[in-house]
Amino acid sequence: MTFAADTAHRAAADGGYDADIATGWDIGGNANGGYLLAIAGRAMAAAAGRPDPVTITAHYLSPGKPGPVHVDTSVVKEGKRFATVQATLRDASPGGGGRALLALLGTFGDLGPAGGAEGSPIRVDAAPPDLPPLEECVRISPRENAPFPPPFSATVEARLHPDDAGFATGFGPSGEPRVRGWFRFPGDETVDTSGLLVVVDAFPPTIFNAHLPMAWTPTVELTAHVRARPAPGWLRCVFTTRFVTGGFLEEDGEVWDATGILVAQSRQLALVPKG
Amino acid sequence: MTFAADTAHRAAADGGYDADIATGWDIGGNANGGYLLAIAGRAMAAAAGRPDPVTITAHYLSPGKPGPVHVDTSVVKEGKRFATVQATLRDASPGGGGRALLALLGTFGDLGPAGGAEGSPIRVDAAPPDLPPLEECVRISPRENAPFPPPFSATVEARLHPDDAGFATGFGPSGEPRVRGWFRFPGDETVDTSGLLVVVDAFPPTIFNAHLPMAWTPTVELTAHVRARPAPGWLRCVFTTRFVTGGFLEEDGEVWDATGILVAQSRQLALVPKG
Repeated sequence: MTFAADTAHRAAADGGYDADIATGWDIGGNANGGYLLAIAGRAMAAAAGRPDPVTITAHYLSPGKPGPVHVDTSVVKEGKRFATVQATLRDASPGGGGRALLALLGTFGDLGPAGGAEGSPIRVDAAPPDLPPLEECVRISPRENAPFPPPFSATVEARLHPDDAGFATGFGPSGEPRVRGWFRFPGDETVDTSGLLVVVDAFPPTIFNAHLPMAWTPTVELTAHVRARPAPGWLRCVFTTRFVTGGFLEEDGEVWDATGILVAQSRQLALVPKG
Repeated sequence: MTFAADTAHRAAADGGYDADIATGWDIGGNANGGYLLAIAGRAMAAAAGRPDPVTITAHYLSPGKPGPVHVDTSVVKEGKRFATVQATLRDASPGGGGRALLALLGTFGDLGPAGGAEGSPIRVDAAPPDLPPLEECVRISPRENAPFPPPFSATVEARLHPDDAGFATGFGPSGEPRVRGWFRFPGDETVDTSGLLVVVDAFPPTIFNAHLPMAWTPTVELTAHVRARPAPGWLRCVFTTRFVTGGFLEEDGEVWDATGILVAQSRQLALVPKG
């Protein structure tokens, strides 16, 4: 089981792409949102003829279960530098009726090699999160027959800052809706720019650390900007929430690579669980 | 000339919507991106059968000029609470060849009246920007035959915090890529949730205040989250940029209404002009 294999696709006769939601990427039986985004994103990149999702947005319509899916793609514009693709990710299982799981819009380009000149920062008003060494961080490991942590937590390696992991370790929420941590794929599989689409949705909800009812926050929409291809090695991530209003909350993410370069920014809009 | 009239649409025979890019909304001859977003957003809301753009993303493909446009819409999912719509805004002028100007994806709902219970904040870790009274703020008025400020600046009333207006008043950039200010439509026309789509792109680029070459930053993508319907009165806005890297920058916006409620959040990805 690798990210590359579990997000692979095959060109379909209708001009779209066939793929499969693999097992092991689910949370409470539903596939992780970042994983679904990566499946669709890779197919859209193929349609665009460009490898890197410079900016991609997914709207989450229905939960995904393991099984076949289909990605319809439509290239809206193919320019010199970028190509823009509309897409839907649909359930292709016999009983699925072609139900739409995600609607997507992305612009793809070629960001060049990690650490290339294009990646050089001109101005950066933030730094990677200050994380203790890996061995002092908290790996959330799956427990059998328990709703939390989910199987997904065995498929990726996310290690939380101990100050942000109290909701899981029994010390209780930090009080600050923030989650910081390290990320990599098991076996140090390369995180390419499609892999970053998993990273931006791979950590527990920020509001697990707020003094609010602890519940999963369904994603309405997630947008990721990929700034550069990550260098090999552990990624440093931080997710924060500032506004829990009107029944919604946003979760802002930053992903930094091992060389200290910002490689992705993300924002998702999620629903606040009712009572 | 009002926002409502200048973003109106008519149902077209093909199931889409016809509209017009009005004059007066341009910057250097090209229609303002938020204005184009509002034209498309209103048509998408009609297709969704729901008034409020809860989250909407536009990818900017080609500049828009005054004249007829067409909005193709496709409702991907119609749920109990939300409906999700894919769309393109296309040039419908005789010589335009149906060229795509914007590709869009939006989820629409009904946010209820301004100040409704749904709008009540549970947790807010920020406050509206602290702005001097209107009369101490800087209205950027159009000058004849000058590229800056653009005609757009006469069509909306944006008044900048004097500390952030030095690039326009001759005192030079503040050094901080931030722009704060008041906003309303002329004559105090109501800013509804579609109007907020103009607001989030109505201020000069943040990097006019950075010590970087001053140039327009073409928008690649803009996502707006509308949290609540604004109460009547002047809106308070703040736009900031933290990362100018890899040839891109993000611009994060917040819009607060006269009662101190956060009504919209936005983020756009823009290109850094090549020196």
